[in-house]
Amino acid sequence: MTQATTPGTDTHPFYAQHRETLERALQAIAERSYWSHFPESPSPRVYGETAAADGEAAFRAYLGHPFPLADQPGTTSWVATEASPFGVDLGVSYPHPDVDALLAAAAAGLPAWRDAGPQTRLGVCLEILHRLHRNVFELANAVQMTTGQAFVMAFQAGGPHALDRALEALAYAYAEMMRTPANAEWEKPAGKGETLKMTKTFHLVPRGIALVIACNTFPTWNSYPGLFASLATGNPVVVKPHPRAVLPLAITVKIAREVLADAGFDPNLVTLAAEEAGEGLASVLAVRPEVRIIDFTGSTTYGDWLEANTPQAAVYTEKAGVNTIVVDSTDDFAGMCRNIAFSLSLYSGQMCTTPQNVLVPAGGISTEQGQKGFDEVAAGITGAVAKLTGDPARAVELIGAIANDGVLDRLAKVREVGEVLLDSQTLVHPAFDAAVVRTPIVIKLDADAEATYGNEWFGPISFLVATSSTNESLDIFRRTVKANGALTASVYSTDDGVLAAAEDAAMDAGVHLSCNLTGGVFVNQSAAFSDFHASGANPAANASLTDGAYVANRFRIVQSRRHQ
Amino acid sequence: MTQATTPGTDTHPFYAQHRETLERALQAIAERSYWSHFPESPSPRVYGETAAADGEAAFRAYLGHPFPLADQPGTTSWVATEASPFGVDLGVSYPHPDVDALLAAAAAGLPAWRDAGPQTRLGVCLEILHRLHRNVFELANAVQMTTGQAFVMAFQAGGPHALDRALEALAYAYAEMMRTPANAEWEKPAGKGETLKMTKTFHLVPRGIALVIACNTFPTWNSYPGLFASLATGNPVVVKPHPRAVLPLAITVKIAREVLADAGFDPNLVTLAAEEAGEGLASVLAVRPEVRIIDFTGSTTYGDWLEANTPQAAVYTEKAGVNTIVVDSTDDFAGMCRNIAFSLSLYSGQMCTTPQNVLVPAGGISTEQGQKGFDEVAAGITGAVAKLTGDPARAVELIGAIANDGVLDRLAKVREVGEVLLDSQTLVHPAFDAAVVRTPIVIKLDADAEATYGNEWFGPISFLVATSSTNESLDIFRRTVKANGALTASVYSTDDGVLAAAEDAAMDAGVHLSCNLTGGVFVNQSAAFSDFHASGANPAANASLTDGAYVANRFRIVQSRRHQ
Repeated sequence: MTQATTPGTDTHPFYAQHRETLERALQAIAERSYWSHFPESPSPRVYGETAAADGEAAFRAYLGHPFPLADQPGTTSWVATEASPFGVDLGVSYPHPDVDALLAAAAAGLPAWRDAGPQTRLGVCLEILHRLHRNVFELANAVQMTTGQAFVMAFQAGGPHALDRALEALAYAYAEMMRTPANAEWEKPAGKGETLKMTKTFHLVPRGIALVIACNTFPTWNSYPGLFASLATGNPVVVKPHPRAVLPLAITVKIAREVLADAGFDPNLVTLAAEEAGEGLASVLAVRPEVRIIDFTGSTTYGDWLEANTPQAAVYTEKAGVNTIVVDSTDDFAGMCRNIAFSLSLYSGQMCTTPQNVLVPAGGISTEQGQKGFDEVAAGITGAVAKLTGDPARAVELIGAIANDGVLDRLAKVREVGEVLLDSQTLVHPAFDAAVVRTPIVIKLDADAEATYGNEWFGPISFLVATSSTNESLDIFRRTVKANGALTASVYSTDDGVLAAAEDAAMDAGVHLSCNLTGGVFVNQSAAFSDFHASGANPAANASLTDGAYVANRFRIVQSRRHQ
Repeated sequence: MTQATTPGTDTHPFYAQHRETLERALQAIAERSYWSHFPESPSPRVYGETAAADGEAAFRAYLGHPFPLADQPGTTSWVATEASPFGVDLGVSYPHPDVDALLAAAAAGLPAWRDAGPQTRLGVCLEILHRLHRNVFELANAVQMTTGQAFVMAFQAGGPHALDRALEALAYAYAEMMRTPANAEWEKPAGKGETLKMTKTFHLVPRGIALVIACNTFPTWNSYPGLFASLATGNPVVVKPHPRAVLPLAITVKIAREVLADAGFDPNLVTLAAEEAGEGLASVLAVRPEVRIIDFTGSTTYGDWLEANTPQAAVYTEKAGVNTIVVDSTDDFAGMCRNIAFSLSLYSGQMCTTPQNVLVPAGGISTEQGQKGFDEVAAGITGAVAKLTGDPARAVELIGAIANDGVLDRLAKVREVGEVLLDSQTLVHPAFDAAVVRTPIVIKLDADAEATYGNEWFGPISFLVATSSTNESLDIFRRTVKANGALTASVYSTDDGVLAAAEDAAMDAGVHLSCNLTGGVFVNQSAAFSDFHASGANPAANASLTDGAYVANRFRIVQSRRHQ
């Protein structure tokens, strides 16, 4: 017997230990109002006086050594591929697998994991989250040093927020598994007082091996939902990290394996598949018939390739897009400029949710201070960016460091495409003198430069686009997002008609919309258990974090029936 | 605002009219015990004295005329492609569309249909089912005369059972849409007694145009779930019928259009895309970017092509497989033989669920009458088939007629591949002298003939495969189904260990299993609201009728948020 509405006596104690958390998470996904399980403040008042130092020490202990995954089978060599954006010498090496051996090992634990049932699987997954959280400072240091995020962001996005998203995915997975009873009695009237009676059993069966292809910039946040949704539904998970951001996922895999072993399951249900840069291991794995689920975060080119070339797998992709802000009018000009500037600056625009195209009528906008011309709006935004990034010591805690050379290349190239309203500056990081730090560049474009702003320029690059009117802005918004996708959009207007038109456009384009953000909420941030991240309704992603569609096809139902 | 837990004042009255039915269906999918909404008996006591005659007259009125779909836009010509297996001259012609015009017309109604919200959409869909049911005898005649099913089967499978499956799909679609609230208030503590407050709105947004590619043998039963799941979740639906079975779907489309128009919606939300045989219209439609959902029933070759070549769409396929019976032992030898014989004979084996491979140990099996040798088991089954099909007048009400020449070709070819244990007979139909009627053929094969029995031989063709033991039978079962898929499996054994091993094998192979069927339930029949049809866990299908995964990705959630 598999799923049951009450746990059986053979349910692992981890389930009982974490049951309340799961139940609260189930409530949260049904309400989608505010809730968080993992505290986002790295304050010693929350995590204790020694947590930060202990975590950093644990992180430093990994440096220069083979990562402790020697027990993982099928290792043919060790690879060290990371180069910290902060210039820290990491020197950690990771097991490089023989694919046949790795997949065979991953598959071996499937039957016992499947037969353990949803409660035990949930208990184990929740215990993994619990232990990851216990090591959250270690994880945060690893995220910071591999991604270039400033520490607080690496802590929050890489730790509690990633863990909350994982818990959200677990709640959806559990709810989905619970929709079908484990058993049913079927009694059909067959005429003449006769009844046909059958007992039916509904088994939850995983699809097969799940492959998680992680990205450079958010190694945990973007991969945890798929990893845990697949694992909870019974699938072994192979994690293929980005060669530049392996450590956070190596730590994750290590802890997952420890918990699995502690609970009596095969630790090879979660494995790491590290590779040399450019080796193409993801593609080798993705087309294997054993791989039946793929979660991917990264480029549109590769995401589209996966969607088109792995029909054996359920594929969940998050790709690139042209996140857009429509500026029509505001009753808080300074607040609007500050909010936009913060969004453009945070992690040097290296979030998949960072706005790129800010559409402003060439004739200007009305504000609480009267009409502001296009140049005044531009000056308001660029001035706010300059203020946020003027002091290097403060700036680096917001903008972090540049994750890779691709971003630098685009920064150089984008200077050619339009009028530079605010130039990018090279800053020296006060703590890491080899860190690669750049402030945002803002370029002015005309509405007819769609060939430029219609594509994603990932990094601290944004375009102020002069349109003939808000109507044209909305047309551009709808058209470019429909064609090229977006993960976020926002609109500023004091006119309810414009807000409604923007919401219509957002529905047509299939992108989440934020309205009139002038305070402490930013368009590039989504809150687990309330905001959906990506919609799956435009080319930037074929799925959303996290909804029913994200989990429902990670397992199948196989039934048996017999007469009573 | 879109979905709501209680219907708004602007919800269409159809919702209130059918709300109780929906609620009962929601209960049924949560319990998966016995329930049916549409009575399966065509008796006059159920449907009234004149219903049968009225329905037949309505059916006959279509014959020889252009079908009344002249209001459908984009028609460039009319095509008449049907040839009844019963030899009845149908002569109905159907609109052949200009694809651009048809898709543009289909898309035009999307925004209003989307914005109507889930209650109104459900009300309209339930009213369509209600009116189809009101015309169920007309529909049954159309199914019978295009598929070759005997009347009672055409009535049941083509009418009430198809309608029940549609209702089941509607219930899943509704439940899925209701999982996310229409609105949420989000209040996040922001420190220092401050609170960040936002109002969030969650819109349900359809994927786009849904294409339903129907089959020759079950035009309504296999297409209704996808059609109604897509329509209920807001997608316009284009129905591409098989050229030999257009009429049942033309009637369906006509009634759907009438109900949509009555409710004030664009009737082009449901359209028919008829084609000449061999024209390839399905492929033209399937790769269109506007087409975002595809439901298909048919060949493995074409299903695999769809899965690999339409990455823009969510694709749900039901293909071919090698349905298997493992015979180990029985305590009701006659009941087993009768039950198997009925399954092999029903609709001349032209069900996607008909068993093909009956695996029997060469050394025979134990029964309540003592040990029976392989030849005795074979004689028991073939004798039961011969008895069921011996009298033409009785036989044709079970086996119906042969749907198309492909089946006849396979019947001829299969005689070469093994020892004929029971030959196929040509019968003369007492009522339709031009009907193409053939009784089942049963062929003996050895276990090493996997190249033959490992592929599907669609039609009244089955193989008795002599294996070395039940263990080998289970190995063959597991291996062939994993490799080539199956929609059904069954096992006969008096040994609990064998039943458990068969259930394990069925889980590994991902196929639904029936145990020891000797009475009035047959392996090729699945009951809506209780049995899942197909599992999506083996190559015979990538989806199941009907579960959460079948509906969850037919719409997306697009949210907006603003400060309070």
